[in-house]
Amino acid sequence: MYFFEGPEKKVEICISNNLESLRNKPIDFWNELVAKAKAKILSSVKNQKVDAYLLSESSLFVFDHKIILITCGTTTLSDAIIFFLEHFSKDQITNLIFERKNEHFPEYQSSNFLEDFKKLNQIIPGEALRFGSKDSHHINLFNYHQTNNKTPSSNDQTFEVLMHGVPKSISRIFSQDSNIETIRKHLDLTDVLPGYKIDDYLFTPNGYSLNAIKDEYYYTFHITPEDPVSYISFETNFPFNGNIQKTTEKIIDIFKPRTFDLFYFSPVNENFKINFIGFPAIKKIQHYISSGYQVNFQHHLGFNNEVEQAESINIQT
Amino acid sequence: MYFFEGPEKKVEICISNNLESLRNKPIDFWNELVAKAKAKILSSVKNQKVDAYLLSESSLFVFDHKIILITCGTTTLSDAIIFFLEHFSKDQITNLIFERKNEHFPEYQSSNFLEDFKKLNQIIPGEALRFGSKDSHHINLFNYHQTNNKTPSSNDQTFEVLMHGVPKSISRIFSQDSNIETIRKHLDLTDVLPGYKIDDYLFTPNGYSLNAIKDEYYYTFHITPEDPVSYISFETNFPFNGNIQKTTEKIIDIFKPRTFDLFYFSPVNENFKINFIGFPAIKKIQHYISSGYQVNFQHHLGFNNEVEQAESINIQT
Repeated sequence: MYFFEGPEKKVEICISNNLESLRNKPIDFWNELVAKAKAKILSSVKNQKVDAYLLSESSLFVFDHKIILITCGTTTLSDAIIFFLEHFSKDQITNLIFERKNEHFPEYQSSNFLEDFKKLNQIIPGEALRFGSKDSHHINLFNYHQTNNKTPSSNDQTFEVLMHGVPKSISRIFSQDSNIETIRKHLDLTDVLPGYKIDDYLFTPNGYSLNAIKDEYYYTFHITPEDPVSYISFETNFPFNGNIQKTTEKIIDIFKPRTFDLFYFSPVNENFKINFIGFPAIKKIQHYISSGYQVNFQHHLGFNNEVEQAESINIQT
Repeated sequence: MYFFEGPEKKVEICISNNLESLRNKPIDFWNELVAKAKAKILSSVKNQKVDAYLLSESSLFVFDHKIILITCGTTTLSDAIIFFLEHFSKDQITNLIFERKNEHFPEYQSSNFLEDFKKLNQIIPGEALRFGSKDSHHINLFNYHQTNNKTPSSNDQTFEVLMHGVPKSISRIFSQDSNIETIRKHLDLTDVLPGYKIDDYLFTPNGYSLNAIKDEYYYTFHITPEDPVSYISFETNFPFNGNIQKTTEKIIDIFKPRTFDLFYFSPVNENFKINFIGFPAIKKIQHYISSGYQVNFQHHLGFNNEVEQAESINIQT
């Protein structure tokens, strides 16, 4: 066996506003969709604006005319995307953004980004971009946008914090020896994102996922605590309007990672500035994608002048 | 197709000094050995101490009682190692060090390091280590050492500079539009390593390899100039005794990479200090391996405060 692959694949798909609400689709449709990605629904939480499903591998958010599907491990997200696209005509799909974070073990995935890109491009031809160097942290992105469709609204924002390398003192909190109350307390975001309804799951032997919703906003945590490939993702669509410093500081303080990537979609030209003492941004990318978002990627690394020992590799792995 | 995988696998194997010289083995033995790795011999250069073979994928150096085999691309070096070990009894193998640099495209390799480790460990049980984080630049190392064998001599040193991301102005020099004289002039190391006999090869459509020997010393360059995964390795067994600053500066000046890793094997406790303005070491590892070497790994990154654009991914790739 090998370590669990935390880094996620993600898709956001928008359909025409004049179509019937996606939230009217029967649960079997969503069961089938996530099954195509080799995941399954564990639980859900709903409000007037969004249905949030917690999956065996990450999350699905269903809005009236938009879905966000995030999957990790060795899931086959591109198959779920193709299943979804089969239920709509091309002119009903107004926007699609598919992301894939660089993996720790690409050799155990059933496809790579280039193969996913080629498959999707046959149905909805779009652009593919890499944010970050191939030999370092990076996010691959595929973007299809219906040319006659309007640009995103000003509060249509997405912010991701993707963290690697958490200390044992933190990862311990998310192991099976912990309990869900301790975890919830440690993850408390009420000072930066108050009033959210929460759905969460503690996996065996390790791992924790959380969906939180409030009106049309969500945030979500996915935690893979196992060394040497511990990984934690935080994502929200709350519109920070560029003021992401405080929330990012909070998240970094919760997990104390060795390194983290920020990925921020904004529909306006934001003055995206964020500073962390001891965590310089060693890569900064800003790119306008055809959907009308300014996409910002920053790779931050915790500086450590200490000389370390090599890590022992266990044959039982 | 995909880009050529520059990052190498490497093995150094030592046999008992009382055995017949490896240099007496017929050329067919070496042809067969490198064929096991899916490489082939292109040319050679020899002196009183060493036979240096230039391969379709990197290099083979044959000493009286030691070989060094370096292969890149999708070669299967572990198969060549097993072929070599089949020709000796276990007590004739005094030392083996197998290295594998993290690849750009692990998904196109026929095995990963863990699989290689398990295979080798069945024949010669040893230790496996990772120098560097799994989510960043790293070198995997497997080490077998015969317990009753002596420690390495004081001038038994190896120094590697592994470079990623060369500017177009440099990579152009190593394309097929260039010529071998221009390349040799650009790679001139006579001020730091004078008097070497040189054997080199310019590949089609891109790429260049060079072996150089003088007495019992060698140095070698392997250059994969193609964006976005340009990669260059330099390696030598010249005993710098810790004074690697000048040579590394020369190498970095030749290639002007975005990032580079230093890997330095020394049989004594070296005061391994090296500094590059604008290229801080963002990871430093020092580990004594059972063969008796102090192994030093440093990952250096060129700092760039500029905000860049994302890189476009071409579907034809």
